[in-house]
Amino acid sequence: MQIIAIAALSLDGFVTRHDSEGNSFTSAVEKKHFSRVLKTFDCSVFGSVTFEAARNQIEGHLSADRLRIVLTSRKEDYAGNSRGGMLEFHAGAPQAIVSLLRDRGKTRCALLGGGQVFADFLRAGLIDEFWITFEPVFFGSGKRLLEGCLDWPLDLIGIEKLGGSVFVAKYRPRIH
Amino acid sequence: MQIIAIAALSLDGFVTRHDSEGNSFTSAVEKKHFSRVLKTFDCSVFGSVTFEAARNQIEGHLSADRLRIVLTSRKEDYAGNSRGGMLEFHAGAPQAIVSLLRDRGKTRCALLGGGQVFADFLRAGLIDEFWITFEPVFFGSGKRLLEGCLDWPLDLIGIEKLGGSVFVAKYRPRIH
Repeated sequence: MQIIAIAALSLDGFVTRHDSEGNSFTSAVEKKHFSRVLKTFDCSVFGSVTFEAARNQIEGHLSADRLRIVLTSRKEDYAGNSRGGMLEFHAGAPQAIVSLLRDRGKTRCALLGGGQVFADFLRAGLIDEFWITFEPVFFGSGKRLLEGCLDWPLDLIGIEKLGGSVFVAKYRPRIH
Repeated sequence: MQIIAIAALSLDGFVTRHDSEGNSFTSAVEKKHFSRVLKTFDCSVFGSVTFEAARNQIEGHLSADRLRIVLTSRKEDYAGNSRGGMLEFHAGAPQAIVSLLRDRGKTRCALLGGGQVFADFLRAGLIDEFWITFEPVFFGSGKRLLEGCLDWPLDLIGIEKLGGSVFVAKYRPRIH
């Protein structure tokens, strides 16, 4: 199972513009890039806040080609939203989620946040690559990429320009 | 007067590792780069917290080739530290500091932070370029690049690899 974390940030490290949830601040080239790369994954994992922020987009694009797992401790709240094999709601530690995906025959997972999900999978040593799109804007405030305090080194794999002033930097977290 | 802001950040947007002031987390290639580019400036401006964090380095490398201005509302606290033409302590709005530098015949200023200084000069429309070195590490917490809440777009000028996993992205803040 290959797990790749994907996030778009302001230059000063925020994943939201101030208190506005969601990725409305990201550029057209980033949205196009994200949509294109997502097609190369057979599953994705994200938290319930991320789900709520992009709910219409997600529910409007469900397909059996990619299983979406929403991590939540309140599975019962979403009982009516679950669509087996396409959109499912699960509780559990990162390793348990990965086992679940493996059991379904999945091989390539896009990890989409938020901050607690990224930090939990990073600490569990489960992230193979971290792709960060840097949007050319300063926000000064907003949600952070990662929850909690850590000191995690990474190695740069490469930089890919998306167009305009937007680029993706791809990293491999070190094992430690 | 050309004013270039220079900062080194963790990938998740912090200019310090957690609560540790100073740039001890930056890589050897960044320190070499910073030291090399600083020689191309005839003056630099930074806040008193930045000064305190790098005081020994700064006071050990004073020269008449580059005037260092420390911004502080407590000039009197530093009366014994001032070295005319090399290290001076001033209060004042960004525009007043730029006028002071112009009056001394200075033409190229390195703006070195911290977050309030960067934000004040940005809001005053005085920053020509913003050079950000991205260090390949996640901290989760620390000091932010900019104080306050803003929404400031920039244009990418270019990306320069420094070696290893470290690169500098150079931007031009838009006028607005």
